Amino acid sequence: MTSKVTRNNTPRVVIVGAGFGGLNAARALAKAPIQITIVDRKNYHTFQPLLYQVATAGLSPGEIAAPVRSILRAYKNVEVLMAEVTGFDLDHRTVQTSEAEIPYDYLIVAAGASHAYFGHDDWEPLAPGLKTIEDALEIRRRVLLAFELAERQAAAGESKTPLNFVVVGAGPTGVELAGTLAEICHHALAHEFRSIDPARAHISLIEGGPRVLATYPDDLSRSAQEQLHRLGVEVRTSTTVTQIEPGAVYFGETRLAAAVVLWAAGVAASPLGKKLGVPVDRPGRVLVQPDLSIPGHPEVFVIGDLAAAKDEQGKMLPGVAPVAIQQGRFVAKLIRRELESRINKSLGAPSFSRSVREGGKFDSRPAFHYWNKGSLATIGRAAAVADFGKIHVSGFIAWLAWLFVHILFLIGFRNRLLVFIQWAWSYVTYERGARLITGSTYLPGWTSPAPAPPVATQPAPQEIHTGAPK
Amino acid sequence: MTSKVTRNNTPRVVIVGAGFGGLNAARALAKAPIQITIVDRKNYHTFQPLLYQVATAGLSPGEIAAPVRSILRAYKNVEVLMAEVTGFDLDHRTVQTSEAEIPYDYLIVAAGASHAYFGHDDWEPLAPGLKTIEDALEIRRRVLLAFELAERQAAAGESKTPLNFVVVGAGPTGVELAGTLAEICHHALAHEFRSIDPARAHISLIEGGPRVLATYPDDLSRSAQEQLHRLGVEVRTSTTVTQIEPGAVYFGETRLAAAVVLWAAGVAASPLGKKLGVPVDRPGRVLVQPDLSIPGHPEVFVIGDLAAAKDEQGKMLPGVAPVAIQQGRFVAKLIRRELESRINKSLGAPSFSRSVREGGKFDSRPAFHYWNKGSLATIGRAAAVADFGKIHVSGFIAWLAWLFVHILFLIGFRNRLLVFIQWAWSYVTYERGARLITGSTYLPGWTSPAPAPPVATQPAPQEIHTGAPK
Repeated sequence: MTSKVTRNNTPRVVIVGAGFGGLNAARALAKAPIQITIVDRKNYHTFQPLLYQVATAGLSPGEIAAPVRSILRAYKNVEVLMAEVTGFDLDHRTVQTSEAEIPYDYLIVAAGASHAYFGHDDWEPLAPGLKTIEDALEIRRRVLLAFELAERQAAAGESKTPLNFVVVGAGPTGVELAGTLAEICHHALAHEFRSIDPARAHISLIEGGPRVLATYPDDLSRSAQEQLHRLGVEVRTSTTVTQIEPGAVYFGETRLAAAVVLWAAGVAASPLGKKLGVPVDRPGRVLVQPDLSIPGHPEVFVIGDLAAAKDEQGKMLPGVAPVAIQQGRFVAKLIRRELESRINKSLGAPSFSRSVREGGKFDSRPAFHYWNKGSLATIGRAAAVADFGKIHVSGFIAWLAWLFVHILFLIGFRNRLLVFIQWAWSYVTYERGARLITGSTYLPGWTSPAPAPPVATQPAPQEIHTGAPK
Repeated sequence: MTSKVTRNNTPRVVIVGAGFGGLNAARALAKAPIQITIVDRKNYHTFQPLLYQVATAGLSPGEIAAPVRSILRAYKNVEVLMAEVTGFDLDHRTVQTSEAEIPYDYLIVAAGASHAYFGHDDWEPLAPGLKTIEDALEIRRRVLLAFELAERQAAAGESKTPLNFVVVGAGPTGVELAGTLAEICHHALAHEFRSIDPARAHISLIEGGPRVLATYPDDLSRSAQEQLHRLGVEVRTSTTVTQIEPGAVYFGETRLAAAVVLWAAGVAASPLGKKLGVPVDRPGRVLVQPDLSIPGHPEVFVIGDLAAAKDEQGKMLPGVAPVAIQQGRFVAKLIRRELESRINKSLGAPSFSRSVREGGKFDSRPAFHYWNKGSLATIGRAAAVADFGKIHVSGFIAWLAWLFVHILFLIGFRNRLLVFIQWAWSYVTYERGARLITGSTYLPGWTSPAPAPPVATQPAPQEIHTGAPK
């Protein structure tokens, strides 16, 4: 089985992954006479920097995600496939999915990253991470459910499970989760419970290293820790989690009761990186060349969180959206340039596409340079840090910068406008609009693992006229 | 175990269910010196009349649902419990939940209704109904997934599963689902696929009776059927579904291939109705007295979809929001009046609450009268019917009336404003903002039942400083 895109001679670029890297590559390529296929196992692009807002009930999934098809609708030469990529055949230049093989002239792999539990995969159901919409909904479910269960137990006069929330890992995700949880407890949920006081919930942020936001300059780390403290978060640095069990986290001998544990500690690259058959680093990122292609295959590029790319000083580029966006555009430009030069060379040749495939020789390419416009990390309401190289900013101004950049970059006008209104509204009212507990009511260490729903006896049918048999 | 509300002598009203009936009863009671406990198994109220918009990706769940606690936050004498009610002890006046017994002086049961499959419960996984947020998300998932799978198969050159959508039951829910599906195929999804044409999807609306919207006057039924026809929906009346299997629906010998089957054919009252131990009708609705109390227990009321209440002509009241709202307010007023008259009678008595419980005698009560302001059913974009008694309206004007009433009634200002913006936006752009496929990628009759996800080999941990063990 082959994709229908094999049927003509237009050069073909296949992009795996519709994150920031893949999407920007597709857009930058789309104006050229190229056939582009973008494959993702989801039908939507997720604006990952705002995932923590879904996890903390501030935004709905639909407000930070948009269908890949909608985003790319205007580009008639872009085909979007929702499919799971299972592997690659680099020799025959095809991408394998569960149902078809998709041939390519150029391949861009932008499959992203997931969580790492450092060999403790059994912790995953006890301490969910935050990489997908589903992750965010699971975290939201657990956090909200903990308050509901506490209220129910308190109303029934039972001993309460302590309302402790533990966030493991004080990188940007851990810091924003802990800060926003604190905000919720003190504001959004205040005055809504009768038997418990949400403001007495305890939020701990656990970090193995000596400081929070380790990739930021020292002074901003200190500022972030102070801002967390002001929000009511207890920060424990140089503290290593040794065990997680339902309802508790251990640091060596110390046991901390925990209603909800969230995991923001480690990142592992997509397993697709290893399937390219070239060297990867410990987290599974592909060791790319300076031009972001892989050794021995100049027609295959790896970008975004899946790529282990270095800057001029030999320092690893961080797994953030601006890097992926710039890499996507860089690779697209490179491919367009090469295809255009080949069009000129092969003028009159019967198969343009074949000439590319048989060409073999790739012109010398420039190296990718990351233009770092600065780093922003949000902590909570009017709390953030910003690192613009020589200028370091903290607090409200940094938060405004963060807000501006993130609303500006949200893909699609509709989302941008709605998110802005939502944000303005909740800033004024302290409300969290998306506080729905959907799915199961199981909370590890609190409710019994599989509560059997009461069996509903099937009532007799109502006497109305319908298409169903009588 | 008893709820803490037993600890004082304020009269106690327990409300089961936070739908339109329960919520309006709670609000109307909240201003009186009464302790109110409202119990629901969900933490949110669902604005059911707009559920079909979630099912068809027009609105996000958070836009038509709001936490019960938020809605009732201002009423300090209202306690909200998220719990599953398992039964009632009418003699001892307690409501049983999985964890506690909640005592009451008055009880209002407003537990609503669910789908009925007329003895074919095996059809449920094949043809989901639309009563909850989870139902809506499941329908959304299936509808969107069908288009994605069709595109993927067509791109791979495989024979396509026909893009047939079958809606069973042409009551208000079936009509709005079918109409909105047609709208999506012709507008929202147009120009987004490369290998299939969504406009060629086929939508069938199956009705066992002779006409659509059977509870509406003849002329409006005819108008609705014409409007459906104009939207491209094939209506089959007097057609009875005899079998549903993965990928197909049967009417006797006739087989209709179906990518997605939706069930809007039958309603069954909550099984809690039967647990009251009084007579119920065939769909399980409680046969209430004219004052909405149950025989032998004047302190127990049943309202909303769970009540089989009749109007002056002996005609069953429909299971719609206005009936539930008016019943909730009626019962609340009745309870307040009785408690106030007892306060006057028992002045100086040590226990006010006890005097109510031991009083036994209930004053003669008025009967509930439903004030029918009219019925509205929407069909799709600018298509609806409205029955205002002597005045029958169809088309755009009816749709405007429907829109106005529904936006006006959406609970909570934030939702009202956002939904309005959303609606205005999608009316102008034809966009559907919430087109996310979350959860499984299984579609009965299309994908294999349990597709095993590719096993991700666990990459080695990244070398960053975190709270996790090294």
